[in-house]
Amino acid sequence: MQLSIIGYDPSGAWMRQAGTMEELLGYRSSGGITWINVNGLKDCGEALSRLSETYGVHPLTLEDILNTEHRPKVEEFDDYIFITFKLIKANSERRIEIEQVSIILTKDTVITFQESHGPFFEPIRRRILGNVGRIRKMGSDYLAYAIMDSVIDGYFVALDDIGTKIEDFEDRAILDNDASFIPDLQDMKQLLLKIRRIVWPLRENLSSLQRMETPLVNENLDPFLKDLYDNVLQAAETVETYRELLSGVLEVNMSAVSNRMNSVMKVLTIISTIFIPITFIVGVYGMNFSNMPELDYPYAYYVTWGVMFVIVIGMIVYFKRKKWI
Amino acid sequence: MQLSIIGYDPSGAWMRQAGTMEELLGYRSSGGITWINVNGLKDCGEALSRLSETYGVHPLTLEDILNTEHRPKVEEFDDYIFITFKLIKANSERRIEIEQVSIILTKDTVITFQESHGPFFEPIRRRILGNVGRIRKMGSDYLAYAIMDSVIDGYFVALDDIGTKIEDFEDRAILDNDASFIPDLQDMKQLLLKIRRIVWPLRENLSSLQRMETPLVNENLDPFLKDLYDNVLQAAETVETYRELLSGVLEVNMSAVSNRMNSVMKVLTIISTIFIPITFIVGVYGMNFSNMPELDYPYAYYVTWGVMFVIVIGMIVYFKRKKWI
Amino acid sequence: MQLSIIGYDPSGAWMRQAGTMEELLGYRSSGGITWINVNGLKDCGEALSRLSETYGVHPLTLEDILNTEHRPKVEEFDDYIFITFKLIKANSERRIEIEQVSIILTKDTVITFQESHGPFFEPIRRRILGNVGRIRKMGSDYLAYAIMDSVIDGYFVALDDIGTKIEDFEDRAILDNDASFIPDLQDMKQLLLKIRRIVWPLRENLSSLQRMETPLVNENLDPFLKDLYDNVLQAAETVETYRELLSGVLEVNMSAVSNRMNSVMKVLTIISTIFIPITFIVGVYGMNFSNMPELDYPYAYYVTWGVMFVIVIGMIVYFKRKKWI
Amino acid sequence: MQLSIIGYDPSGAWMRQAGTMEELLGYRSSGGITWINVNGLKDCGEALSRLSETYGVHPLTLEDILNTEHRPKVEEFDDYIFITFKLIKANSERRIEIEQVSIILTKDTVITFQESHGPFFEPIRRRILGNVGRIRKMGSDYLAYAIMDSVIDGYFVALDDIGTKIEDFEDRAILDNDASFIPDLQDMKQLLLKIRRIVWPLRENLSSLQRMETPLVNENLDPFLKDLYDNVLQAAETVETYRELLSGVLEVNMSAVSNRMNSVMKVLTIISTIFIPITFIVGVYGMNFSNMPELDYPYAYYVTWGVMFVIVIGMIVYFKRKKWI
Amino acid sequence: MQLSIIGYDPSGAWMRQAGTMEELLGYRSSGGITWINVNGLKDCGEALSRLSETYGVHPLTLEDILNTEHRPKVEEFDDYIFITFKLIKANSERRIEIEQVSIILTKDTVITFQESHGPFFEPIRRRILGNVGRIRKMGSDYLAYAIMDSVIDGYFVALDDIGTKIEDFEDRAILDNDASFIPDLQDMKQLLLKIRRIVWPLRENLSSLQRMETPLVNENLDPFLKDLYDNVLQAAETVETYRELLSGVLEVNMSAVSNRMNSVMKVLTIISTIFIPITFIVGVYGMNFSNMPELDYPYAYYVTWGVMFVIVIGMIVYFKRKKWI
Repeated sequence: MQLSIIGYDPSGAWMRQAGTMEELLGYRSSGGITWINVNGLKDCGEALSRLSETYGVHPLTLEDILNTEHRPKVEEFDDYIFITFKLIKANSERRIEIEQVSIILTKDTVITFQESHGPFFEPIRRRILGNVGRIRKMGSDYLAYAIMDSVIDGYFVALDDIGTKIEDFEDRAILDNDASFIPDLQDMKQLLLKIRRIVWPLRENLSSLQRMETPLVNENLDPFLKDLYDNVLQAAETVETYRELLSGVLEVNMSAVSNRMNSVMKVLTIISTIFIPITFIVGVYGMNFSNMPELDYPYAYYVTWGVMFVIVIGMIVYFKRKKWI
Repeated sequence: MQLSIIGYDPSGAWMRQAGTMEELLGYRSSGGITWINVNGLKDCGEALSRLSETYGVHPLTLEDILNTEHRPKVEEFDDYIFITFKLIKANSERRIEIEQVSIILTKDTVITFQESHGPFFEPIRRRILGNVGRIRKMGSDYLAYAIMDSVIDGYFVALDDIGTKIEDFEDRAILDNDASFIPDLQDMKQLLLKIRRIVWPLRENLSSLQRMETPLVNENLDPFLKDLYDNVLQAAETVETYRELLSGVLEVNMSAVSNRMNSVMKVLTIISTIFIPITFIVGVYGMNFSNMPELDYPYAYYVTWGVMFVIVIGMIVYFKRKKWI
Repeated sequence: MQLSIIGYDPSGAWMRQAGTMEELLGYRSSGGITWINVNGLKDCGEALSRLSETYGVHPLTLEDILNTEHRPKVEEFDDYIFITFKLIKANSERRIEIEQVSIILTKDTVITFQESHGPFFEPIRRRILGNVGRIRKMGSDYLAYAIMDSVIDGYFVALDDIGTKIEDFEDRAILDNDASFIPDLQDMKQLLLKIRRIVWPLRENLSSLQRMETPLVNENLDPFLKDLYDNVLQAAETVETYRELLSGVLEVNMSAVSNRMNSVMKVLTIISTIFIPITFIVGVYGMNFSNMPELDYPYAYYVTWGVMFVIVIGMIVYFKRKKWI
Repeated sequence: MQLSIIGYDPSGAWMRQAGTMEELLGYRSSGGITWINVNGLKDCGEALSRLSETYGVHPLTLEDILNTEHRPKVEEFDDYIFITFKLIKANSERRIEIEQVSIILTKDTVITFQESHGPFFEPIRRRILGNVGRIRKMGSDYLAYAIMDSVIDGYFVALDDIGTKIEDFEDRAILDNDASFIPDLQDMKQLLLKIRRIVWPLRENLSSLQRMETPLVNENLDPFLKDLYDNVLQAAETVETYRELLSGVLEVNMSAVSNRMNSVMKVLTIISTIFIPITFIVGVYGMNFSNMPELDYPYAYYVTWGVMFVIVIGMIVYFKRKKWI
Repeated sequence: MQLSIIGYDPSGAWMRQAGTMEELLGYRSSGGITWINVNGLKDCGEALSRLSETYGVHPLTLEDILNTEHRPKVEEFDDYIFITFKLIKANSERRIEIEQVSIILTKDTVITFQESHGPFFEPIRRRILGNVGRIRKMGSDYLAYAIMDSVIDGYFVALDDIGTKIEDFEDRAILDNDASFIPDLQDMKQLLLKIRRIVWPLRENLSSLQRMETPLVNENLDPFLKDLYDNVLQAAETVETYRELLSGVLEVNMSAVSNRMNSVMKVLTIISTIFIPITFIVGVYGMNFSNMPELDYPYAYYVTWGVMFVIVIGMIVYFKRKKWI
């Protein structure tokens, strides 16, 4: 568990880190906006209960923060709005990982909870401390918006990556000499299902956040929330598009395999049907009957070759007509 | 049929079991919350009609309690709310079983009906008798919530188990040397359909329970009901995800089988097309015509081997170019 | 056309049959509830127009009664409610048949129309005449409910029968040595589509009947209507479940056939690839070239057997490694 | 372009045809209902603009009348209601053709536009001129209803025809020795998609027509409009049912083909696997090695036959056990 | 970046081009409608911020204009309506390209932004400058409508083109000797998914534009907006129809391939099963056993031919009966 606190108002900003929640809460100053960040949810029971007392957090909210399997939601309480949703990030081996982020938004404080350590919120911290953009001039609601916005921007990075992989799959579906094709495809499908379950509920919940009549969200935040909603909607539509593309890939693969098998079958059939009859003929004259008059005709051998040649030509013509060659 | 009665208020709790409803109803004390539990629905007609008179239960409610095929529902009557839904549990051989649970919630009494005997509600009993958590301080509505919550928690246990089996199926879909694969898959599909018909109607009904304006449900239960609703929604989404994964499994299996058959076909084709022509050649020189000049050429045998070698190499090169090998 | 009339009030009940509507209408007594039943819709134009005059029925209602292809509907008119829906019954050869039933419900009269003769309503008649249950104590609306209820109970009988057949199809899909499998499956699919078109519109219409604010339906009928609605909803969900199961059956069949074909192909491939090369070898030494030194080596025959043995073993090992055997 | 005008009131009716709109409009009489019909939309710009001036038609309405690709719609303007929808008819070679019909409904006039010449409205004309049914007693709204009703009745004729063809396709799917099967199926699919795009928007638009609060539609038309709506709904459901049936046909065909191929493959496999080994054996004893002791054993030939017989029987037993035969 | 400005009122119109926004804004005259067009979005940051100051554009609107991946939307601000949507056009190699168009609509000014240079709006410019139609008599809202209308007309051109290609695909699905078939099909599918994501959101947004109660849109524009909406709806339905047709194409292809493979397999099976047994027979009499009595019977050779003939005829009859030939 790592704890940090940032305080700011239009005229200035400061940041502190602390080992215990007790110490951290001591740093709070009156006036301005306070941002408390909790990194890592192991062994933070003590810290959470301290927070809970200080800010009047409902016990069910604490449960939701600790249950990292919770679906995204926005919930209004008397003194605060509770927002929980997911972070999508690529880990060091470029595999996609999903992590829960929770926000408690009060009138002058934002408390954020991250599942693991990681520098994801660093850019926002820099914007506050360096007074970049409008963030220092706005309220705690804008800070919560900025955090959500940076998380949702991360969705597009992940989705772009997936988009590239899907194009790759489409090529492999047609060529596919790789045994890992189908398992890889299944993994991708499951990943998209997971992301879908992250993005769709967020969409609904952002829509309900927009409609909430709460003093905690200033009305000049409206265009920003609308923009956020548009972004999540776009992410959701992208997920659906990808799912459609992916669901076609296996079908394409089967079709490609069928087509290839068909052409292989044709070659086998043609070779077989050409040689089987003439092989029979040469078998006939390999028989050892004492009385086989043809064997003694002087030109029988050449006639046999001629007959076989005619059969072969006849079959090739037949196959050409049937469009098999 | 097993009957038990629990009474409690913030200051104390007691529990009794009885052989007849008559006896059981005698144990009721005024004040506090009463929980009557009926285990097993066989031969309980007499007991039900006694209950019905005492608490003013509508005849249709009694019918619904006894009809164990009823879909989950929440229904408001003048003096009580009737809730019927399903329990999912693994039996002793780890097979999933579904059972009906019904709740009648009045102002100060909760009556529960279970289809069979089983210790499913034991933890709640212990919480009441041992005064764990807030349960003794809350009303009958919270007791009903606690019962529903423990049943819905059981859904996730069952779904986790199914999730593991689906991953197993995905592996079998690709390897599948097991003849039981398809029937097992069908069984799983049917089980998911069954669970779906349990979870989706419950979702709707919980949502209507939240909106009911009834004096029987205290408004401080709202966050708990919302939490319950979120859990059922998550279960419902999990079921849908599993159904999607499962519906892909057969497709994957067919694709894997097609791919494997394609590679088997290739080997057959290649072996056949290589050997068929040269087997024809050796057949030719096995003929017994008296006049076959080649037979007497001293190097004819070696030339034949050479020709066959050239044909084989030629075909291998051709197949390599066609990317069949 | 068969006509019958039943009159009842809490204190008594009587029943008469008649050849003409004229005669039948003469039997009506004032007070109590009257139930007129018309069995068979051929040649009943005259009777209908007499009824129409007596009870003020709209011409479009008469058209709907006679058009037996009409989709289920509930329609409110000034003086009556018109309900038309379908009866599902098994005929004498256990084949499922669908028939239209129409109900005209006025304040004190229920008029029912059945497409053919049949004892379907006999149990209700017995309940009235024998004063079983609450039917004699309730109004005409309860009679209409009782009729609808008995028809909808018939849906479950038909659906249970279909459920058994679907399980049968699932077994046949995997084994299928029966040429009638696919046509039977198609018939079942069409039957389910038909039933669906009976059940879904009824669901909507029952829901609108519940919401109707009409003096013709007493409010103490509400729980009964809700129960009816629940039953139709359950039938509708069962139909959807069956459709899903059935739509998977053909896929399962194709998958089973593919799998079987794959294993057959493997045997063919293995036998062929093992014997084709060694058959070539024996062909080589069947050639009649005068100069084939191997033929005269004393142990050549045994060496040839050895070589062939090595080839066969080599290929079996190769196939084992490739997991084809 | 053909122009005709009909005038009627309860006491009488007359009809005239004219070469120009100028002439036609001259025939109008005051009082009663007027029906102007325009057959053929080529070169009717002049006529339309005359109509437009006379009845105050919006320019966009004129555009919609001339754009024969327009989707069905009902639009309310200040002085009139504009309805445009499609006629489905079988042409002389029994192929289905789709044509646009537009209606302008004012208080006392109905103007209809048909894409081509054709006697489609003849029965309505006869009902007016012959005073059949209630048409002469009703207003212009009833005339518009009668026209729509006759068009929608035509949908059922077309759908019945399609239903018969689909049953035909289902039989062909299982037998299919006809190369035109798949292209015919595709044509049918496209036709259903076209009809769907005709019927569904009409359904919505009729529903909005029912809800319109306009003095142009008398409230005693309500049951007729509801009936019309029911018919369109039934047509729409029939289209969906047909689409489902059709979408299964190709699957059935593939399944039937797979099954047949499987049984063909089995025969090939059995014949091959039985003869390949014994053909190898006879090849062995066709070799010409000088030292092959078996060749000289007197009963070797009979022993060889015995061995081959045992092999064949062994394999047949094996196949029987594997249920391949 | 190319800048142009057009001013007009019912009595006259003028047009100017400029290198900088500064210069362009200088050309504005009071009175009448002004249309500012910005072609090309590279390096136009400076110009946008000048516009933003002059017309009070929200920073998020500027971001949306520059983000060319934005989904179509209509957004109302205090002083203007912001509309962003997509242009579909065929480039010089007849490939379809998608480009973003944004419109800012104020009371007397329309500002348009195009992603690249191109003469797409030329016809509208000519209508203004040449005073064609009603455009000079209407307000800025009609100009915005005219621009949207011309863009949406372009959708139909693109969709017609796609429709032709789909028909082409359906033919190729059945014949398909072209290896590019499946990749081409995938490209088309992706293009349709792209267009869908352009058309559907536009539909919703036009619907919300119709419902907006804003002084910026005059109510006499209502029929035009409704018409626009109808067109987009038609485009959306066309896209869905095309998607359905396309999704069937691969299935048709697989079915066609299966059918063809089936008939190829049959030929192979028939040839093989006819020749394999008789080839075995000739093999038998090619054996070199010293004691093979048949070899010396004078008519054995002819009898052998006879037996083989009977076998062949027998098998042909068998196949005919099984309907394999």
